Amino acid sequence: MKYPNNIEKEYKKPLSYKNRGMDLEEDLNTSNAYYLEKDIALIFKKPTPIGVAKVSYSPKGKVIERAFFKEPSTLDYNGLYKGKYIEFDAKVTKNKTSFPLANIHPHQLEHIKKVIKHKGIAFLIIKMNENVYLLNGEDLLSYIEKYARKSIEYAYINKNGYKIKYGFNPTLDYLKIVDEIYFNKEELIWQN
Amino acid sequence: MKYPNNIEKEYKKPLSYKNRGMDLEEDLNTSNAYYLEKDIALIFKKPTPIGVAKVSYSPKGKVIERAFFKEPSTLDYNGLYKGKYIEFDAKVTKNKTSFPLANIHPHQLEHIKKVIKHKGIAFLIIKMNENVYLLNGEDLLSYIEKYARKSIEYAYINKNGYKIKYGFNPTLDYLKIVDEIYFNKEELIWQN
Repeated sequence: MKYPNNIEKEYKKPLSYKNRGMDLEEDLNTSNAYYLEKDIALIFKKPTPIGVAKVSYSPKGKVIERAFFKEPSTLDYNGLYKGKYIEFDAKVTKNKTSFPLANIHPHQLEHIKKVIKHKGIAFLIIKMNENVYLLNGEDLLSYIEKYARKSIEYAYINKNGYKIKYGFNPTLDYLKIVDEIYFNKEELIWQN
Repeated sequence: MKYPNNIEKEYKKPLSYKNRGMDLEEDLNTSNAYYLEKDIALIFKKPTPIGVAKVSYSPKGKVIERAFFKEPSTLDYNGLYKGKYIEFDAKVTKNKTSFPLANIHPHQLEHIKKVIKHKGIAFLIIKMNENVYLLNGEDLLSYIEKYARKSIEYAYINKNGYKIKYGFNPTLDYLKIVDEIYFNKEELIWQN
């Protein structure tokens, strides 16, 4: 996606604890760009929600002088694939034994429940121990309901998550996994 | 949707030519909030895409010091309704005889084509001559292909668009029209 109207060069986020998921994000963005170019799927990262506090007007256009990041209550990526609504979030943890659930806001868990209820596809893409997993929303929610823990054990992710392999194009072919989970069993899942 | 973490009061846009569609936007936002609350549909306005040029760090969190609005290449609203992907844009014109197509970027028209191709639902909600119309993506595209004009005649919108009535809750029940257009003929549209 090209935005022609940038008047200044975009700020690049510094590498920090908060942004250590950036390479996963970049890999997903290039994968989505590939899916778009090949007309396979329409999946985009949503813009970060902000609250604008002050603007000014320059001859080149409106400039935001002060704004704040807001907390999202939905997931970061959504779109359309084979007639189905898809929504997911990408998370990275350096923790080797468990995935901390503080990474996901309660609003977002509620949202995952609703997406599933309304017959959409919802999942997390988790990068952990140098692997990238697709953990579907149903498995995420059932773990939390059963164990109500503050984190998900790596063993659970490694057993129930689907490993996404790195490749050339797309970098992370997560739709191959979506095909496996949601479309091969279509008659089971979508006919209810 | 509530965002708890706003540190400053949000800037309210002044009433101007650029913002004259705001009341339609507000009516759609309250309608979407109603659909969400009643668990009818999950439809959200996407955050405005911005390019952040400068940030600073305060004890309360990261503050954007300089940013620019970007041009969207998708439509403003998207979500999930009865298992279907929905995407639309809201447009207001004071023009009484025709709807200027300069209101829609070429990227957005391409995007509408793709959404339809991938079996999503795409449309415009147009406020014009004190009426609110849902013009489905297929009718929009076929008009542009046939007449290739810089605007759509009001007569066409009034004939082919579906009038959305104002009500109490939801303010604008556009999903009623979506039901009429896309779900009553489900076997015709979705089986191909």
